[in-house]
Amino acid sequence: MRASGQAVGPSDQPDFHSSAHQLTEWIEAYRSCLHELPVLSRVQPGDVEAAIPPVAPESPENFARILSDLDTTIVPGLTHWNHPGFMAYFASSASDPGILAEFVTAALNVNAMLWRTSPAATELESRMVDWVRDFVGLPDLFQGVIQDTASTSTFVALVAARGRAVPDVRELGLAGRSELGQCTVYGSRLAHMSLDKAAIAAGLGHANVRHVDVDERYAMRADALDAALAADRGAGRHPVMVCATLGTTSCTSCDPVAEIADVCAAHGVWLHVDAAYAGPAASLPELQPLFDGWQRADSIVLNPHKWMSVPIDCSVLLGRNLEEFRASLALTPEYLASDTTEHNLMDVGIALGRRFRALKLWFVFRWYGTNGLRAMLRRHCELAREFAARVAADPRLEIAAPVLFSTVCFRAIPPAGFTEGDWNHRLLSAVNREGSIFLSHAELDGRFTIRLTIGSVHTQREHVESAWESVERALQHPA
Amino acid sequence: MRASGQAVGPSDQPDFHSSAHQLTEWIEAYRSCLHELPVLSRVQPGDVEAAIPPVAPESPENFARILSDLDTTIVPGLTHWNHPGFMAYFASSASDPGILAEFVTAALNVNAMLWRTSPAATELESRMVDWVRDFVGLPDLFQGVIQDTASTSTFVALVAARGRAVPDVRELGLAGRSELGQCTVYGSRLAHMSLDKAAIAAGLGHANVRHVDVDERYAMRADALDAALAADRGAGRHPVMVCATLGTTSCTSCDPVAEIADVCAAHGVWLHVDAAYAGPAASLPELQPLFDGWQRADSIVLNPHKWMSVPIDCSVLLGRNLEEFRASLALTPEYLASDTTEHNLMDVGIALGRRFRALKLWFVFRWYGTNGLRAMLRRHCELAREFAARVAADPRLEIAAPVLFSTVCFRAIPPAGFTEGDWNHRLLSAVNREGSIFLSHAELDGRFTIRLTIGSVHTQREHVESAWESVERALQHPA
Repeated sequence: MRASGQAVGPSDQPDFHSSAHQLTEWIEAYRSCLHELPVLSRVQPGDVEAAIPPVAPESPENFARILSDLDTTIVPGLTHWNHPGFMAYFASSASDPGILAEFVTAALNVNAMLWRTSPAATELESRMVDWVRDFVGLPDLFQGVIQDTASTSTFVALVAARGRAVPDVRELGLAGRSELGQCTVYGSRLAHMSLDKAAIAAGLGHANVRHVDVDERYAMRADALDAALAADRGAGRHPVMVCATLGTTSCTSCDPVAEIADVCAAHGVWLHVDAAYAGPAASLPELQPLFDGWQRADSIVLNPHKWMSVPIDCSVLLGRNLEEFRASLALTPEYLASDTTEHNLMDVGIALGRRFRALKLWFVFRWYGTNGLRAMLRRHCELAREFAARVAADPRLEIAAPVLFSTVCFRAIPPAGFTEGDWNHRLLSAVNREGSIFLSHAELDGRFTIRLTIGSVHTQREHVESAWESVERALQHPA
Repeated sequence: MRASGQAVGPSDQPDFHSSAHQLTEWIEAYRSCLHELPVLSRVQPGDVEAAIPPVAPESPENFARILSDLDTTIVPGLTHWNHPGFMAYFASSASDPGILAEFVTAALNVNAMLWRTSPAATELESRMVDWVRDFVGLPDLFQGVIQDTASTSTFVALVAARGRAVPDVRELGLAGRSELGQCTVYGSRLAHMSLDKAAIAAGLGHANVRHVDVDERYAMRADALDAALAADRGAGRHPVMVCATLGTTSCTSCDPVAEIADVCAAHGVWLHVDAAYAGPAASLPELQPLFDGWQRADSIVLNPHKWMSVPIDCSVLLGRNLEEFRASLALTPEYLASDTTEHNLMDVGIALGRRFRALKLWFVFRWYGTNGLRAMLRRHCELAREFAARVAADPRLEIAAPVLFSTVCFRAIPPAGFTEGDWNHRLLSAVNREGSIFLSHAELDGRFTIRLTIGSVHTQREHVESAWESVERALQHPA
């Protein structure tokens, strides 16, 4: 029936078997040649779009043709996040169990919006959040849900925090209320831009985000936060939330959460901890001190899709009191009402429909075990320290920030005739042009800084050595 | 190396081959017995959670054991959205190409946040949005992005609309501004709750959502909307957005978009169209009149994960001017800056990380062709009409709302001694208890109404006939 284009339904099921096997072969071939592909795509803007017909086909196309287009059109246009040489931004790598779990997730295709619309999806999600929480050593008073990304998690936390600072905001909103002052939000100068975006989206305004000064280790100065909060309170403003970051995006610095928790307690302000990248590293006893005090937060976000080899997207939002989240957002219209009194996960977030994301966390935890995950995290940190040691030992280079986890920020000292920014930009371009390694950059104190971050399940010592060789070649022949 | 629990990496790759084949077999077995499983899960609250260990395993577990737990723990706890008898809420069904696409999406695991972080993901997404737009007959001035769900799409549209109504809201926010009146939002009494949630999240306040009256067909009264807008303007408030719904959740009624567009134009208010469910039906010429005027909207949402057999999640947000969306939310910190001037999809949404959702749309369009998709939509509408005819012909039942698409709202006339609500609740419970069919309910004019909706790629005539038989049995033996 499929070939006729007349019907869609179970009748096409016989095709699933052969297509799935063809696709498995395709995926295996992709994975086996991946390390030879340029990690950063070399296509020019518009190349891919030009290769895709402007309108959809009227009649069915052969699956073999779709697979062949994957090779010719899609793969050359990909920047390969699963490439072992992907050391830019923060890694998001898909492990075997993560990929397999996504396959079965799609086949099940359940919606975890209500408990009733798939009890197992709701209850496994609660359990997996518990597993993550215990893995990173947080107390069991924290409960949570899985969101798509840290940006969404932080936004949802901000909406809950806004409800604590302005109790009737849910009903009355923020506008047209003469009794209400401005609502302010606090993060360090290195806080992730998702904090700014959340403040904009929630109607607080970008101008009301305070970017608090940092110390020489790029950690938020608790005294500066205290002063900012006092100034805003004194001016009649309503401090809504402080976001402390454990593992900033620019250089993975850690704000002093224990001190910040004291300041938040003194001012009665919601403390949110952004540990999107570094959170899983709290499972390593030797790194626990960096997280000291985060158990005092009102909310915490950490992303298994970053450093736990779970495919994108999977962000865990933990809260000390999920009732505050529900009170800020939950709505149950009659068409979603059910007889059960179980919690419905849609109540802690914007999205109503919710993928069964817990399944991939479950597969990953069981496939590797917590020992396997810890071993990976530890190895990544070790490889970063080795790379940093090479940088530190090379008179042409310098370390730009303390190496706390698996990320190394460094820059080259420019030869005469070049500015620092220009020289490092050329160096980075030269590395990225080669194709085996992809690094990104950040700005620290206004200075262009090269970032190498290790977080992919596929990255081994040889790839980090290759990154070092690539940097050495680039020093000889910058772009 | 895996068995030792010491390392995680490419060394486990050999396992992928056999695991993928085992999993394919598991999926095929699940699919082939799916129609025999109870569509609505029968577990009790806590059953699934009790079966999952409270903490993660330290050492790796065998994949066969994970698969076996899928059978024993997960499947009994699922409400099977892919079951052919799933006729509750709105269907979200995963077709063969959709499932296969999710498998390859996970294996590629790219992040479509920036053009640079995977050009093909960005450009295919643009193309797929174009395909959807053309499929439903909208003019090519509409461009868009893929979001997770309609709730998110509507929220993002509201943030953009808020920026038009209050041009400096991005910078200054809504609070503490004496010059600013309340900001109001409009939908019919049957508008989806995501509109209310969006207004709450955006800081407008639930009390500022106007639930405009409807006519006897449950369509928004344009005159009532006009009056509400005039009253709010007269009181110094700022109307931000009108949401017209094409295919309401309760009964799939359609607001008169052309008339509403006139009203919005007269008042200078953003028009958003929620066609999350019904949107794909605009591809059928015979149903196009219901959509008349939607091409005048500022933004439109429709969900391929509902009625286009694309696995959850996939919601297309179309905008007349994406620049307004970007102006309301876009932020590019230095660590995400790149040399290209291409648009970055993260700029039209809250989430920074973005799955490669376009791939499943591409697979589905090509596998079925637009003719195949139209045939499915048409067949679903035809099956709904057949079911409605049986209801209309049965003196024990009555049709509760016009059947415009593939959803039938009906209720039973209670025998003496029962209230209408109680009788229909019993009837629904009896149907759902049987296990072969899952129906949901809605409230229309305060009256409990049973809803049957057809939208799954797996639902055929025999399943709708089975639904009718189930209703007949329930009439004999209500719960």
